[in-house]
Amino acid sequence: MDAGGKALPLLLDVRDDIAIKQAVTQAAEHFGGINICINNASAISLAKAQDIEAKRFDLIQQINMRGTFMVPRASLPLLRKSENPHVLVLSPPLTMRADWFAEHLAHTLSKYGISMVMFGMAEEFRAEGIAFNALWPKTTIAIAAVEFALGGDAMIRRSRRPEIMADAAHRMLTRKARDYSGNFVLDENLLRAAGQTDFAQYHIDPEHELEIDIFVDPDLPAE
Amino acid sequence: MDAGGKALPLLLDVRDDIAIKQAVTQAAEHFGGINICINNASAISLAKAQDIEAKRFDLIQQINMRGTFMVPRASLPLLRKSENPHVLVLSPPLTMRADWFAEHLAHTLSKYGISMVMFGMAEEFRAEGIAFNALWPKTTIAIAAVEFALGGDAMIRRSRRPEIMADAAHRMLTRKARDYSGNFVLDENLLRAAGQTDFAQYHIDPEHELEIDIFVDPDLPAE
Repeated sequence: MDAGGKALPLLLDVRDDIAIKQAVTQAAEHFGGINICINNASAISLAKAQDIEAKRFDLIQQINMRGTFMVPRASLPLLRKSENPHVLVLSPPLTMRADWFAEHLAHTLSKYGISMVMFGMAEEFRAEGIAFNALWPKTTIAIAAVEFALGGDAMIRRSRRPEIMADAAHRMLTRKARDYSGNFVLDENLLRAAGQTDFAQYHIDPEHELEIDIFVDPDLPAE
Repeated sequence: MDAGGKALPLLLDVRDDIAIKQAVTQAAEHFGGINICINNASAISLAKAQDIEAKRFDLIQQINMRGTFMVPRASLPLLRKSENPHVLVLSPPLTMRADWFAEHLAHTLSKYGISMVMFGMAEEFRAEGIAFNALWPKTTIAIAAVEFALGGDAMIRRSRRPEIMADAAHRMLTRKARDYSGNFVLDENLLRAAGQTDFAQYHIDPEHELEIDIFVDPDLPAE
């Protein structure tokens, strides 16, 4: 599908500060600036604290929490020149549920670390009008990580298409940055609040009930 | 002053997983086991997100958050053999105040990281009866970091003696671990709840008003 956009794909290890700087510079030179920084990539490891390998612990903290700190920070000089600068990450609301920490402490630390970076930067850069927000899916999303690392084809059928996240992100990123920062939202909730009512379009296989994602209250009605 | 205890001082860089294991083994061999693991040490850097050097960011995350994850974890086999195993750290309650993140994001991430490690481990190891708790001082404490890094002699006079933290820690560590885990407490609050009423004994210079510590509601009455 041709969505009509133009991309500049750059390989980047977000643990490498010099590589981050180079990628920011290349993107800015190619497009003439940076209006939006989306930190989408994240590493996953759902082992318990007593089991996780130290090198996996380090990998997910460095990619998830540290990467989310360093990439937007390196983009600041260019975001400051934008008319509507947005930083968007995929991370959960800061709900302190002990079971979500006990099940996979290292992973939760890394994802809540991302959210806390947004929480702090939203406030630090509020006066400059740069928006920092976090979006999280209410249900599992049909992506490779779900198919290969989590629940296989069965979980894919209980998931929604990535388009729901794209639609939610688009609504967030077209809001006025100065008036919309420091928010933590679930995709479906955001779209409902914006008046959308059809969610069946996203459901991979409506014969199967939707799977509520981690970091979302499992007692929420699945639509 | 001879407090009557016996110590085995060991140099340890908590970023070094092999050194952690060796220190745990040495302590266990010397004392015949480990009943209590107190993570006291922490690195401080109060720069804003836009200013902090990447290597300072890494240092405080690795010592504070990662060290608190790795040291108690390495002590688990010995804590499991103890009759009343306790892990205690010095870190704040998980109060999400945006200003505390905006002022010194990297430091807050590292301290809240410590608290989230306790929050998760308390739940992960609850059935095994190992206690994980966090203590935080309501006021600044008269220690070298306050004198040399924060507010000099003037702030020392507005601080309390370290003994208030020792008294509070003693009360926490003598509770039954199985019934007391996952708590985040302020020193004065804990001692008041235990019936203590004299706090002037801790005040370095009662002529000066006490200084409320960071991560504590500044609107709290200073005693």
